[in-house]
Formats: sequence, structure tokens, C-alpha cells
Amino acid sequence: MSIDRSRLRWNGWGWIEAPEVLGENAGAIWGWMARTLGLDSLPHTPAMPLEQIVLPPSRLDNNEHGRLAAMLSPERVKTDIYERAFHARGKSYHDLLYLRAGRLDTAPDAVVYPETASECLDVLRFCAETGYALVPYGGGSSVVGGVNATAGIGHRGAITLDTTLMNRLLWIDRESLVACAQAGIYGPHLEDALQAEGYTLGHYPQSFEFSTLGGWIAPRGAGHQSNRYGKAEEWLVSAELATPRGLWRTEAFPGSAAGPQARDLVAGSEGILGVITEAAFKIHPVPEVKDYRGYIFTDFHAAVDATRTLMQRGVPTAMIRLSDPDETRFYSALKMGGEEPDPGLRLCAMLVGLEGEKEAVEASLAASRVIIEQHGGMHFGESLGESWYKGRFETPYLRDPMLDRGIGVDTLETCTRWSNIVPLHEAVTRAIHEAMAAHPPFPGAHGICMAHISHAYHNGASLYFTFVLPRYPDSEIEQWLAVKLSASEAILEHGGTISHHHGVGEDHLPWIEREKGAIGLETIRAVKQQIDPANILNPGKLLP
Amino acid sequence: MSIDRSRLRWNGWGWIEAPEVLGENAGAIWGWMARTLGLDSLPHTPAMPLEQIVLPPSRLDNNEHGRLAAMLSPERVKTDIYERAFHARGKSYHDLLYLRAGRLDTAPDAVVYPETASECLDVLRFCAETGYALVPYGGGSSVVGGVNATAGIGHRGAITLDTTLMNRLLWIDRESLVACAQAGIYGPHLEDALQAEGYTLGHYPQSFEFSTLGGWIAPRGAGHQSNRYGKAEEWLVSAELATPRGLWRTEAFPGSAAGPQARDLVAGSEGILGVITEAAFKIHPVPEVKDYRGYIFTDFHAAVDATRTLMQRGVPTAMIRLSDPDETRFYSALKMGGEEPDPGLRLCAMLVGLEGEKEAVEASLAASRVIIEQHGGMHFGESLGESWYKGRFETPYLRDPMLDRGIGVDTLETCTRWSNIVPLHEAVTRAIHEAMAAHPPFPGAHGICMAHISHAYHNGASLYFTFVLPRYPDSEIEQWLAVKLSASEAILEHGGTISHHHGVGEDHLPWIEREKGAIGLETIRAVKQQIDPANILNPGKLLP
Repeated sequence: MSIDRSRLRWNGWGWIEAPEVLGENAGAIWGWMARTLGLDSLPHTPAMPLEQIVLPPSRLDNNEHGRLAAMLSPERVKTDIYERAFHARGKSYHDLLYLRAGRLDTAPDAVVYPETASECLDVLRFCAETGYALVPYGGGSSVVGGVNATAGIGHRGAITLDTTLMNRLLWIDRESLVACAQAGIYGPHLEDALQAEGYTLGHYPQSFEFSTLGGWIAPRGAGHQSNRYGKAEEWLVSAELATPRGLWRTEAFPGSAAGPQARDLVAGSEGILGVITEAAFKIHPVPEVKDYRGYIFTDFHAAVDATRTLMQRGVPTAMIRLSDPDETRFYSALKMGGEEPDPGLRLCAMLVGLEGEKEAVEASLAASRVIIEQHGGMHFGESLGESWYKGRFETPYLRDPMLDRGIGVDTLETCTRWSNIVPLHEAVTRAIHEAMAAHPPFPGAHGICMAHISHAYHNGASLYFTFVLPRYPDSEIEQWLAVKLSASEAILEHGGTISHHHGVGEDHLPWIEREKGAIGLETIRAVKQQIDPANILNPGKLLP
Repeated sequence: MSIDRSRLRWNGWGWIEAPEVLGENAGAIWGWMARTLGLDSLPHTPAMPLEQIVLPPSRLDNNEHGRLAAMLSPERVKTDIYERAFHARGKSYHDLLYLRAGRLDTAPDAVVYPETASECLDVLRFCAETGYALVPYGGGSSVVGGVNATAGIGHRGAITLDTTLMNRLLWIDRESLVACAQAGIYGPHLEDALQAEGYTLGHYPQSFEFSTLGGWIAPRGAGHQSNRYGKAEEWLVSAELATPRGLWRTEAFPGSAAGPQARDLVAGSEGILGVITEAAFKIHPVPEVKDYRGYIFTDFHAAVDATRTLMQRGVPTAMIRLSDPDETRFYSALKMGGEEPDPGLRLCAMLVGLEGEKEAVEASLAASRVIIEQHGGMHFGESLGESWYKGRFETPYLRDPMLDRGIGVDTLETCTRWSNIVPLHEAVTRAIHEAMAAHPPFPGAHGICMAHISHAYHNGASLYFTFVLPRYPDSEIEQWLAVKLSASEAILEHGGTISHHHGVGEDHLPWIEREKGAIGLETIRAVKQQIDPANILNPGKLLP
């Protein structure tokens, strides 16, 4: 079962029939947001409707179309406007600026929907023969330009391979707690199928409803509850990929000393080494109990220390999410219909999610409360946690109405060691603020920057930044780029990774060599050259 | 601080002044062993003393020797007999058959002892210019032919780079629980330095006393307590390597989505991609409490199920070691001075090790006892655990006196999913028995095969096999090879990895392509070709 794409926004987030996130306070909230951004009122900046957009003509000729149709079936080879527009880009702010402006130069020449690994190999062979690039595409929720249908140098064009008809749960090994599914299965369908048997993978990124198993693996994604269930590279047991060299099945052992493991190359391969067609992954019994609750700190540093202590003492948590004072203030205001707490109040909200057997959750709850209270955290009750849990997939729906009102919003994330969390947080916050302030689009206009610790480890954590800014009319992309550059430079200069779970795609290419070093990058390039010497697969992503 | 190599056995295990493992019952135990192997008496089969052995002459000429001496210092370039013999091979049974017979064709032409990464680069440059292979060597405890000083095709000879003068703890990041040391530091020195500051890496393989940090990383090693502290690829944070392309520092993030991580290529690289010169790794506070105790099962399958349940319920353990009935019987007889339990008694011993804060260990003890007893396990008290813990580094000392008495003994290990543990255990046991029985060296002679689960995971476990056999005079290597082939075929046919923590080296080369597949192996080959196109580094290991 797949999702009816005609019910999805091609140039925005999620369902066309979206939930109303702001509720009855919407008017007051928009007023507050305008004031906060230093604007008298919010402008009307609608997206260009698809009917008004002229796409570059598909380069697929009749003969090629016929070959693909014979290879798959006519209805699984699409060249219509909607399909090409839908697959032109992912879902980053950057992407949406292009899509909403009707700039669809990255629309693929065709979209194909194979149903088997063998059909993927056929399509790859077609691309090798005809000179098209092939762009693997799952849910299309990339926020780093990972699915842009960009043709590489010398390519005739670009075809997008949509994996979502490869969407079956294949088997469950109950004894080993391992399951295997085709890679194009959407999050909800995968979890429905697993949970019907009593199991869960537990991978719930914010994009959960609109992303796929393969799309989680390709960029080394992380779900909210990665403390318990692991990042993609941790829960991945083995993968099967369609490559120009044929079908590639990785090893599938719980542990092995037989050289480097191919699985570790697949997680993070971003479609450049093959189309992930199947994956086996660790599963867990559906947790008996879920406990999500909030704590409030008056000091961010103490709250970071509490988070670190929880991780290093090994208290089993599913999630720890710690918002800095700016983020705590922003979400409070959203919740309170635009009313802000006293400016002197610099509170930090921490959400702790526990999942598992009842007794274990109770033990973790007791242990975590002791540590949190020792660090000055105050229990804020379950409502904060429950309301986050209930609305955890809804926040992205805020972006489209913001974009309609002249507001830009983007996120970026990194990861570093505990001893570097506070300096990195300060450096990136400063860099984003400085870039936003450098050229205010209107007199008095200014942006907001906020962050939270989103995933935590024994030796460090991920910092997730959000910035909100009044858009610069007619140079929105340059404005975005200035902030992105400034933040990314600060991340690398201060010892962070350019991405903790979004990936590299096209957007992080300028920094990847500095992060990996010349030799490190060459190792990936050597593997790419070996598997895909003609650079058919997702050109222009991951490797500069 | 390094180890005085003249105090170590060049052709056997550990210190020349070895502990007496069998104690006062030695005579009775040797008698029992002879009976068990179907022999009337044990022959006298001493090793050839070094004085009687003629080594192939070193191919290093005076000019080359002078260049190396100028590059390092004269006393750090060794070409004497003892150094060359000491570095000729690792410490597998296979190696010892060669060493004890005086077959030292793999003795390096010289042994160099750099003190810095920069000196390692100099040596690599020397090798590139002169055509010598370079074999990285830490403690030399490889049991898969990982340090044999074999020259590759077209090489003038082979030089061994001994890392053990690079042996300093460099820094500790207490907040992040990460430390960094030079890679040639021996286990005890590393732990002494860490524990003086209150920390531990917790990596205690059986070779702990005679192996190095770099030597743990290169073959993806595992310590006894890997349930708590992780395998090398899990505790490794980052590495620095000297390569023919220059110094290679991997990323060092707790988590990253910036493509595949070079760290994952280094763990398992077995010296073919570079000399590991430094590594950062996760540390833990020295555990407040260690609790090691034994349990007895009357049914192996139920005991496997108990092990699986402990892991899948997430009970925090440092170690679970489950011996099959044959291994339990063997070690009982050793302990009881050669007296065997009733043949009808098929008991399995399980050792459970818990480490950490007192309260946490108590909670794990309670939780584990419930699960173990639910599966029919009986508490056998702390003495079994304590005596294992006390003697855990002594068992390898049994091998040399066995070799002196015409007995062969080797180990091999694999890892597979839980649902496959019992079938794989049966298949490999059968394969080893059949191979040993095929050509008994004497009428009535027969071997012993036994196994234990040595490391366990959420989705599977490692099986560690030991076989003991009366040696076939004058064709001992062929006899060993027949058993090794048979066991390895059974492992691969029945879904196991060719090695869980020993590595590939030379000994597992025949199976590596079948395990990894052609495309998987090509990815490693491509990386090797990129970093070391002249194949200077450790030729003939890992890649067929």
C-alpha cells in the first residue's frame, strides 16, 4: 500500500487537507509573530499554482518512453506535469523557495515506479545505455537537496526512480527480533504491519508519515526515540541494493570481524551507490508503556548537564529533548496564543520520553527524576510531554502558512561532544543571528534563532537549530544561503558535524571535504567509482 | 612504557616465566587428557630452540639499513635473529606449528620502532621508494595470520613496523567520557593510566596483557565484557592513520549523517589501509562493583534461550558466557584434576558478569536471576564466576605444554542470529568432529570439540569453538587445515560470519568473498587501491 500522491502537496508539507495547527488563536499568533520579527504586518506571498508554471520539456523521447513502458508497464512510467513537479525537489525551505516560485528546472524527465529489485536493475541498465541519471526517491522528504532530479555532467537528463511501489513487509524473525521489508514502504504502513504482529521498529522522525524505510537509511536518519531504538545505521541489519554492478546484498550478522561491513557504507550512501530495494532491521516488542513528560530548568547549562548525566549513567530513555530558552519561549508563545512570558524568564523545557515494560519505565522514571532534580530541573507534569507527543508530526505544517505570509523558516542540525555542546550552541546561535542581522529585508526587521538537543549519546549530543526570518523579497535564496553559510562555517569551525541526521545531499556539499578530510572523502569516491563509474546514481549528491 | 620482549616467548604464549596453570594436579590431568584423546601416553614433541634455526637472510642492505637508522635511530631498527623471529608470525595454533618447527620464512627483513606518526610516514615513504612491504604489528597476538611478515608480489621484502613505542595516553575528556591514546599502548598500560584517573575503556580480550589499542581496532576485536563496553567498532570514536597518501584523521562525532563514516572503514582494516597511530575511544568510570557468578543448566537450548531473553529484555550485563555441555565437561575435568562427571550428565555452565554502580548491579542481578531461573538455570554461586575472572588470562598458557605433548588445540569463532544459533552450533560441531575423525593420526585417536556463546546481542550471538586433537606427526599443518576448512565451510553454509572478533588475516581469505559478495569485496578493494595503490601495507591480509 502506498500513499495517493494527488492528496499530497507537491510544493509544501504533507496532506493537502492539512490539520489546522494554530487553532482558534491563529490571528493572535500571526500578530505576535509579526511583532516578534519587527514587522508592522505580514505580507501576502502565495505560491505560484502549478497551472501557471511551465516545466522544461521532458527529454524522454517516444522510443525511450516505449522502452521503459515495456520494461515496467505503461502506468508505471510517468511524464505528466504533476508527477514531474512532485518529484522535482525535496521538502527543505530552500526547495520550497524554488517550488513556490515555479522554478522547476530540477523536474525529472520521467518518473518510474519499479515493483521489484530486478526492475530497478532494468531501469539502471536503461540509464546506462541512454545516458540518463537515475535519482532514487522514497517519500521525498529530504531537507538537504537529496532528491533533486539533477542530471550530472554529460547526462542526457534525469529519471527519478520512485520506490514506493516496493512496499511490502517481507518477513519477521521473532526469535532474533529482526524483520525485513521492501525499502519503499512508508513509515505508517511499516509500523502498522509490524505492530499487527506485536513489534515495532520505533523509528519516528518528524517526517514519519511521509518518508520510507529506504529514505531513513540512505541519509543515516534518526527518529525522535533514537536513544532507545537507535539511528538508522544502528538498527540496520542488512540491505539489498540495485547497482550498476548488479544486485548487492550486504552481510547480515549481529557482529563480525570479517573486515569493514558494507552495511556501514550503505547507511549514508544517499542513493549514490545504489537503489536500496530491501532492508532488514532490528525490531522490538511494542512497548507496554509510553511515558512522556516535561521538566523545566532555569539554567540551560545545568539542563545540558542533566541530559549528559542521564545518558552517561545509562538511564534507559527513549528520548530526551532539551529546548534552549529561545525555543522554550517561542513554543510557549505559540501555545499561549501569542502571549509571551516575562522577558526576564529564561526557562528551558526538557521532554523525557520513556518506553518499554511497565516496571522498567517506572524504574527509569524514578532514576531520571532524581538526576533531573539534582540538576535543578522541576517536574512539569505529563501534559507537556503528552501534548508534544500528540502534535509531534504537526509542526512542519506551520511552515506553509508562514511561507504564505512572507516568513522564512529553516532548520539545521549538528552533533558534537558534551564538552563542546555549550560553545557550539553559542557559536552557531551567534552566527545565525549575525547573518540574519547583516541585511534586514525591512528597517527594524530581525530574525529568531532557537535550538534544542534532539538526540543524545554517551559522549555527546545533537543540536537542532531553527531560524525564523522575514523574507527578503526577490532575493530569498541569497538570504537563506547567507544564513546557511554562516551557520555551517560556525559548525565546522567549532567541532560539529555538518549534519547529524539530515544528510549531505546538495546543500552540504561545500563542507563535506573539510569535515572528512581529503583521504576520507577519497575513500567514498573510490567506492562510488567502483560501483557506478558512469555516475548514473544521484549525481551531485554527497560527493562534491 | 612497553614490554620487555626478551621476557616473552617468541614461539608461544605470554611470559617465559609463565604461571603454572594446571597446578599440583598436572600429572593426573595429562593422564586424563591422553585417555580422552584415545592415546596410551602423550609423546614428547618439543619446539626447536631458536639457536638451531636458520632464518632466511635479511634482504635489507647496508645502505637501506643506514637510511632507516638515520630516519629513526640506530637502536630502533632491528635485524637481529630474536627480533626477526619474534615478529615472524602471530600466535595462532597454525602460527605456532610453523614457529615451533623452525619454519621462519615469514620473518621480516627488519623491524622498525617509530615513535611518532611522522616517523611512520617516513617509513612508508622508504617502503614506497625501496619496494618493501610494511607490516603493522602491535602486540602480535593475531590468531588469523594478521601480522605475518609476508612480502606481496613484486616486493623486495617485508619490514615490520612495531607500534609499541607509540604508547602514551594523550588526553582524557572527562565531560564527554572520551580519551585518546597512541595506538601501540599495551592493554595493561592503557588501563593503568586510565584507572589512575578513575576511568576504564573496559576492553579485556583474552590477549589483554599482550595486545595493543591499535591491535584491538584493526581486526574489530571484542573484549570479554563487550555487552557493556562494546566491540572495538563501537567504542572507537576516531582514529589517526599513517597511510601512503599521508596522515588520515577520521571524523570524531558521537553521531553524524555526513555520509559513511571513515571510522567504520578503519575498524576491520587489518593494517591494509594504514598504520593506526592514535585512537580516541569511549571511556567509563571505573565500575564501583563487579559481580561474576555461575549458573548451571541441564539443557543447552534452554540456556541459549535464557541468554537471548537477557539480551532482548535489555538487562544490563557486562558479559554472558554460556558453555555447551562438552565445554562444561572439559573445564570441570580440568578443575577436578582429570575426574570427569558422570557421562550422562550434560550440564551447561553460564557465567554472568555485571559491572557498574552498586545499585544498578543489584538490580541487574535480581532481573537476571529471575530470567535464568525461569529458563531452568540454577544459581551456582560466585566461586565459579570469581575463579573464571581470576584465571581469565591464564587459559592460553595451557597451549604450549599441550603442544609439547603432541596435542593440538585451536579455536575459531563466528556470529549469527538467535534463530540460527542452535543449528549453526550443531553444524560446526559436526563438521569439526567429522574432519578430526577422517584421518586419525593413531588408531583409536580422536579429538574433542566444544563451544561457548562468548558475546551476545539483541539479535544474535557469537559462538566460540575450541578443538583439541592428537597431532598427526609430520603433517600437522595439513591436519589443522582439514579441520579449519571443514569448520569454515560449515560456518558459511549455515549463515555465520567467518569471524566475529579474530579478523580475516591470511587464514580466512578463502571465504571472504563468499561472505561479502563480489560487490562488497570490491568496495574494500577500491578503498585499498585508492589509499595504497602500490600495496605496501600488510599485503596478503583481508583481501584475496
